Amino acid sequence: MERIFIMAKVAPRTLSGFMELPPKEQMKMEKMMSVLRDTYSLYGFTPLDTPVIESAEVLLAKGGGETEKQIYRFQKGESDLALRFDLTVPLAKYVAGHYSELSFPFRRYQIGKVYRGERAQRGRFREFYQADIDVIGDGKLDILNEAEIPAIIYETFTRLGLKKFKIRVNNRKLLNGFYAMNGMSEKAGEIMRTVDKLDKIGALKVKQLLIDEVKMLPDKSENVLDFMAICGTNAEVIERLELYRGMDATFDQGLDELIVVTKYLKEFGVPEENFAIDLTIARGLDYYTGTVYETEMTEHPEIGSVCSGGRYDNLAEYYTDKQLPGVGISIGLTRLFYVLNEQGLLSDEIVTAPCDALVLPMTEDLAPAVAAATALRQGGVRTQLYGEKKKFKAKIGYADKIGVPFAVLLGEDEVNEGVVSVKNMQTGEQRKMPAGDAAAYIKAALEARSRAAVILEK
Amino acid sequence: MERIFIMAKVAPRTLSGFMELPPKEQMKMEKMMSVLRDTYSLYGFTPLDTPVIESAEVLLAKGGGETEKQIYRFQKGESDLALRFDLTVPLAKYVAGHYSELSFPFRRYQIGKVYRGERAQRGRFREFYQADIDVIGDGKLDILNEAEIPAIIYETFTRLGLKKFKIRVNNRKLLNGFYAMNGMSEKAGEIMRTVDKLDKIGALKVKQLLIDEVKMLPDKSENVLDFMAICGTNAEVIERLELYRGMDATFDQGLDELIVVTKYLKEFGVPEENFAIDLTIARGLDYYTGTVYETEMTEHPEIGSVCSGGRYDNLAEYYTDKQLPGVGISIGLTRLFYVLNEQGLLSDEIVTAPCDALVLPMTEDLAPAVAAATALRQGGVRTQLYGEKKKFKAKIGYADKIGVPFAVLLGEDEVNEGVVSVKNMQTGEQRKMPAGDAAAYIKAALEARSRAAVILEK
Repeated sequence: MERIFIMAKVAPRTLSGFMELPPKEQMKMEKMMSVLRDTYSLYGFTPLDTPVIESAEVLLAKGGGETEKQIYRFQKGESDLALRFDLTVPLAKYVAGHYSELSFPFRRYQIGKVYRGERAQRGRFREFYQADIDVIGDGKLDILNEAEIPAIIYETFTRLGLKKFKIRVNNRKLLNGFYAMNGMSEKAGEIMRTVDKLDKIGALKVKQLLIDEVKMLPDKSENVLDFMAICGTNAEVIERLELYRGMDATFDQGLDELIVVTKYLKEFGVPEENFAIDLTIARGLDYYTGTVYETEMTEHPEIGSVCSGGRYDNLAEYYTDKQLPGVGISIGLTRLFYVLNEQGLLSDEIVTAPCDALVLPMTEDLAPAVAAATALRQGGVRTQLYGEKKKFKAKIGYADKIGVPFAVLLGEDEVNEGVVSVKNMQTGEQRKMPAGDAAAYIKAALEARSRAAVILEK
Repeated sequence: MERIFIMAKVAPRTLSGFMELPPKEQMKMEKMMSVLRDTYSLYGFTPLDTPVIESAEVLLAKGGGETEKQIYRFQKGESDLALRFDLTVPLAKYVAGHYSELSFPFRRYQIGKVYRGERAQRGRFREFYQADIDVIGDGKLDILNEAEIPAIIYETFTRLGLKKFKIRVNNRKLLNGFYAMNGMSEKAGEIMRTVDKLDKIGALKVKQLLIDEVKMLPDKSENVLDFMAICGTNAEVIERLELYRGMDATFDQGLDELIVVTKYLKEFGVPEENFAIDLTIARGLDYYTGTVYETEMTEHPEIGSVCSGGRYDNLAEYYTDKQLPGVGISIGLTRLFYVLNEQGLLSDEIVTAPCDALVLPMTEDLAPAVAAATALRQGGVRTQLYGEKKKFKAKIGYADKIGVPFAVLLGEDEVNEGVVSVKNMQTGEQRKMPAGDAAAYIKAALEARSRAAVILEK
């Protein structure tokens, strides 16, 4: 009896919380990344790349908190290592470490994977891309940098294809000054956490919480709610805020900053309908010290902010005595991609095939097909040469399946005539032309699709 | 007495074996990656992204060997995890796992970081980029795919700026067939390892080693050296190889494959001077089964092969029963960048500044400067708006230091005249023009530099 040896196979699984996309979706993700790279570059940010692994001592210099529990940390030989959990700590390390080689203001973008061992659940990722920009000053950093951020957010999301979004802006000095002038500085953290619930539970219930749990007097809680309710056009909001001027120096400084941030919006090309001052935004408690930003998809508020950040006073205090103020924003790219995909907001208009043209040889001698593929590539057309010996039906089926926009056919007739047949796979139209003309023809036909945005709002 | 609290700083160090570049060098690295992405796309490869972390069981399905010792492996909760050490195993996992969603041949490229805990030494990296392409067939894969690989290698390195390089090609069936016809199959591994020293120690010493250590008869070792010494044009080499035809079926098959691989070189656009059949190339012992490739910088042989790969018969046998033959090549991008930089072969011609234009406002009202920056960006010029309140000398010093090609000055005069002054920072030439014309002017002036290649051979 013959003995059959069957090798045990390992299931090719991917860990939960780790995104691994099918090719067509990956193409959409690549398009998003490419838009981010291009837009960030357009605003004069230089690309950076830092290690995924750092010494745990360096990465956890700040220490403590929720972060430390989630971190991927391990030994390798004698070394205590950890995977980066954001791109801000590596930036701080980079700027402190390369300080003497850098010119300030230092503007960098970084699109990279970060790691957090969160509890696995749908739509939560343990490995995910962040796409950050930061401007770092040496000692000082002008408010104009804070004023420019909404322009960058606007351009980024517009290029991605979003139309219905709003950039919400506030200023931490304004908040801190307001709490100080009302003698509530010590309760500021608690108040902000409570006010954060306004959207969900409404003003009445927030007022009750401020009285019952934060132990505020009713008139003080009224003050808070009146302040938070200020809204309208930028001019209207600033007019209302001017009424508080002169009562607290920090407040006045915050108001001056907010005035600069709104002053040049038009010159920065940001439409007023995509921008709003929102006094309820606070973004965490310690880190930010000036302007803060959130970005909401107006028809999908349930997604939360898709681009957030703010001004901070001291980037790298754990690594250096230098005072390094900065302003930055971050896009949680993997999560953004995931929710857009779930919501059906990713466009099918962009070409997601691996190529624009698939050359299908149907003769024994492949020289004309190879030459045609080479000519297409020289003309800038992403071209695949199909070499498998299959029936025509299988070949054209493959073209269909990969979703290639054009098939380029080379049978005996075409070879004898010295032409190629270019078949538009969407319309079915087929026409003969010299191989040298095919690239220009295909590129012209794809012109509109190459301009299509990756996000398509219904 | 006042008590001063001094916080202990953590040194912002980067682990040894991990590359972290200054901004200008990072720009060159980005340019290299961008060329690779563009070229791989041009040949119809789809970009893939797979997790850096995988289950150790999945990643080490093949098990054993040197790799396992070098791997970064750790526990997180209950999970036994590991960092990928190449892009081939993740590809095998991906193709096996997504088999039903893919169309074959499946052509993917992946540029990503991989991890190997090697002994630290200069120029050796523990975290490094690989840039891989592979074509995977389902059951079968036509030899034309092997014939296309030299074209991709040629286009990639030509676009990077290299001129003096040679793609060396061999075929494992040819080698195995040759050893079989000489009754040396069992010693094939030992012989190949010895023959690999030809370049270093010469034919005489290799012959002695074959006799003394591999225990071959003198005439047999002579046969090996005669075979390995076959060289010349493709036609000459093939003519010599034809003399062995008919003695071993595997040899004959290898020779037929080699004939196809060389047959269409011209149509693929590969100049004969960048290509050579080299019978001494073997590339490892088990994995490759057909054509194998190495790429040498002809003036820097000490660097070794900068792009290698080959044909294999079974990509994913540890994950699936499907037979998945493929052909692929890999560039060790981090090491390549490192050696090019060390050799002074990276061009200073490309723009490494974070921007093409730096807008320097010199008036109180910044509106005209902001509008000028916005116009430049709308015209596609990477633009930084300099907002710091410094003296003119400091501003222009910053422009110099970041190496920006153009400064765009807006003083009272310019604002009153409704123009901007564009200063070419290389030539010192300065001219006034409407802000709306500046983008086209700057783009035209940068045309040549934007076409510059990242590698510049002296």
